[in-house]
Amino acid sequence: MTAPATPRVALFAGSFDPVTRGHEDLVRRAFAFADRVVVAVATNASKQPIFTAEERAALIREVLGDPRVEVRAFHGLLVNLAREVGATMLVRGLRAVSDFDYEYQMALMNRHLLAELETVFLVPSSGLTYVSSSLVREVARYGGNVDALVHPRVSAALRERFAR
Amino acid sequence: MTAPATPRVALFAGSFDPVTRGHEDLVRRAFAFADRVVVAVATNASKQPIFTAEERAALIREVLGDPRVEVRAFHGLLVNLAREVGATMLVRGLRAVSDFDYEYQMALMNRHLLAELETVFLVPSSGLTYVSSSLVREVARYGGNVDALVHPRVSAALRERFAR
Amino acid sequence: MTAPATPRVALFAGSFDPVTRGHEDLVRRAFAFADRVVVAVATNASKQPIFTAEERAALIREVLGDPRVEVRAFHGLLVNLAREVGATMLVRGLRAVSDFDYEYQMALMNRHLLAELETVFLVPSSGLTYVSSSLVREVARYGGNVDALVHPRVSAALRERFAR
Amino acid sequence: MTAPATPRVALFAGSFDPVTRGHEDLVRRAFAFADRVVVAVATNASKQPIFTAEERAALIREVLGDPRVEVRAFHGLLVNLAREVGATMLVRGLRAVSDFDYEYQMALMNRHLLAELETVFLVPSSGLTYVSSSLVREVARYGGNVDALVHPRVSAALRERFAR
Amino acid sequence: MTAPATPRVALFAGSFDPVTRGHEDLVRRAFAFADRVVVAVATNASKQPIFTAEERAALIREVLGDPRVEVRAFHGLLVNLAREVGATMLVRGLRAVSDFDYEYQMALMNRHLLAELETVFLVPSSGLTYVSSSLVREVARYGGNVDALVHPRVSAALRERFAR
Amino acid sequence: MTAPATPRVALFAGSFDPVTRGHEDLVRRAFAFADRVVVAVATNASKQPIFTAEERAALIREVLGDPRVEVRAFHGLLVNLAREVGATMLVRGLRAVSDFDYEYQMALMNRHLLAELETVFLVPSSGLTYVSSSLVREVARYGGNVDALVHPRVSAALRERFAR
Repeated sequence: MTAPATPRVALFAGSFDPVTRGHEDLVRRAFAFADRVVVAVATNASKQPIFTAEERAALIREVLGDPRVEVRAFHGLLVNLAREVGATMLVRGLRAVSDFDYEYQMALMNRHLLAELETVFLVPSSGLTYVSSSLVREVARYGGNVDALVHPRVSAALRERFAR
Repeated sequence: MTAPATPRVALFAGSFDPVTRGHEDLVRRAFAFADRVVVAVATNASKQPIFTAEERAALIREVLGDPRVEVRAFHGLLVNLAREVGATMLVRGLRAVSDFDYEYQMALMNRHLLAELETVFLVPSSGLTYVSSSLVREVARYGGNVDALVHPRVSAALRERFAR
Repeated sequence: MTAPATPRVALFAGSFDPVTRGHEDLVRRAFAFADRVVVAVATNASKQPIFTAEERAALIREVLGDPRVEVRAFHGLLVNLAREVGATMLVRGLRAVSDFDYEYQMALMNRHLLAELETVFLVPSSGLTYVSSSLVREVARYGGNVDALVHPRVSAALRERFAR
Repeated sequence: MTAPATPRVALFAGSFDPVTRGHEDLVRRAFAFADRVVVAVATNASKQPIFTAEERAALIREVLGDPRVEVRAFHGLLVNLAREVGATMLVRGLRAVSDFDYEYQMALMNRHLLAELETVFLVPSSGLTYVSSSLVREVARYGGNVDALVHPRVSAALRERFAR
Repeated sequence: MTAPATPRVALFAGSFDPVTRGHEDLVRRAFAFADRVVVAVATNASKQPIFTAEERAALIREVLGDPRVEVRAFHGLLVNLAREVGATMLVRGLRAVSDFDYEYQMALMNRHLLAELETVFLVPSSGLTYVSSSLVREVARYGGNVDALVHPRVSAALRERFAR
Repeated sequence: MTAPATPRVALFAGSFDPVTRGHEDLVRRAFAFADRVVVAVATNASKQPIFTAEERAALIREVLGDPRVEVRAFHGLLVNLAREVGATMLVRGLRAVSDFDYEYQMALMNRHLLAELETVFLVPSSGLTYVSSSLVREVARYGGNVDALVHPRVSAALRERFAR
């Protein structure tokens, strides 16, 4: 049994508006089977993010600070980015049942579009199951404390954003 | 970026009474991220299997026929076997929502018992979502045709078993 | 547009131990699309029913009292009975999510075994969603009142059974 | 037993933006119990469809090409259309659990509004569970291949639309 | 065992656009364990309600007509209102599984923000499981009869609103 | 507003074979709205518990050690015990979706049998969602460490039981 010749690349995609402790947890778990993780920041024109794609990507780089992690903005079909970066795995966190249905449908569609890309679901830490970017935004917007839910750097960025 | 020094081992556990096309599909998918897969055949005394643990293990070896796959009988806590074979991933198929709940609970319990073992959920081929060992047994018991659901070798073994 | 030449037959299978107001409701709803309904009483040897298959079938006949309903005992694969009675529909009540998963798997398996048999799910009356044979048995066993959950004839049979 | 005097009419409603192989599959399955199927194209002003109601209806007619199928635009309460066309069944595809909840609620509300209209859930072909109009639109918008998911005529219409 | 010194306050929050028989049912059920119920009407700027917050609050007061019920408009984090009114319970109706996931996540987030506030889920009356404000609005908008789903006062307000 | 004249009694029923940290958590949460909690230990003859009903009740008393908690063995219909102890609330933990369906059905049935008994669902601490008596038994049986999942007294009792 010899070590694999090519490093295994996992793709982790989302809006990351902003990156949370839950996202950090999943990227770290992905290294149980991946040599590199590409974090893909969606630049979907139809949503109104509170941080620009560049700001979101910069926060992820600061928060993760791992040379094995590459942060990329992406637009269009995720399978195209997967081909480009040579990913064989698409990492998803599995939090809840309504997640599950949508995720299942997406996984089958992505398999249809790129058979070599395996969707891999991971369970987040049980203390982080309620942490989502949208809840973090809502709490921060009204002055609630999100220090336990996001990295201090993200917490500072949220305070700055909503102080205006 | 250098290739990993140690091969990545995935564990895939179940009763496999008998192994189905769904199980074969999942083991093959696991090689998207694993260098070796250990298939662990549960020898749970409280159930009444139609094949002995030895027969079930022999069928898996015949059906998979891959030198990267090792088949083991196991009894007791799965995390102990994971430690013994050096597995860092536990592979599970995710078929349905009622699966999901039990699987989620098991994943958190196994994480509690062995933090280094990451449970990894995969989506089976959409044409195999209805194939379970228990349905295969029930259909075969009453003379139904299971040729599309299991390997020909398993189909023959089922016919032989229920012919008595 | 001419009327169909052959009557449409729906199959409704279960243990019916005993038949409940929920079962009655579903059979009546099936006549929205079926000309005949065959109620198939499972005679599964591995369970310990409180009424024999003959008693269960007799209660269904009394309770439904509809010439368009035929009650049959069955053993083995349901698709064989479907072929025998010429059913093109298999009627199932859909109550809850855990139902859903198992039902979905069964529907796909039955389609695999007999493509011409379409599984058709109906929603029971909202006031009957909690009525299941197993809950009815448990309540009746301990002397609870089940008059609103089953036909008076079934209620009498339960009292007689548990009076011993 | 005589054949029914009046043909059985099933209603199948949706946005159909655009009609997919999944929709085609369900309409064909409905003929297991219906003599006629009325496909109702919702003209909901609040959504921004990529095809107009007329274009969507025309595509359905081309794709289905069955004299037993009638395509209608509708606005307002579905039960009013059901009364108008004499439908006794409302056909719905049941794909996933989050579907299930909403569908269940709608089925009970429609029963409240029109007791004679029975909602009937069917399971789509397992190879089509991931095909939804919204995923088809998203894939086509970014130039992905949707030939296996929609009729060639629809595929051509999508290419034309997004080529602009 | 002495009676508690301080009255128990339950909080029941929502958009109530408009209040339904389902909401009334839950408030009445809350008095199984609460001495007072504060109904909090969300004044979320991003939604387009059909009734203003003042109109919604006035309808709730008319419909409930119970001195133990206080109706309040609120904006921002619900936990701040809970602190202000001294609530130790947050009452939620549990209708369906997709509800469940979101509700679960919210309950854990609210616990994170205010540990003393216990989220308490109640099951609505089975005849009201399909009644939601959004379905009521949709039915009323198209002239459907909602008299069984809302209080006569609400029914009149809906007719007046959609008559314009 | 005066304090209630009669103390509010909540019922919490189960097998408690053995009582876990999850059960302890729920009983403590129930005091957010209850003055007394009656813990009802089911003595169901058909199951093979590892501890007798007396042992299970004794462990609960030791572990909870709260004068506001009363521990009772019960057999038969829970609603009869609710009447006897004057309970107006039945407390249930809500862990997962498959829980939810069964719990929902039971809540409606219990309401049918005793309208004054309100079923109240609570969310357990997120760190305890995977702790169930059956998983605890399975881990302990094979020598796994359950110290974080049960009270030290229960842990000792399990070691003693499985040492034989």
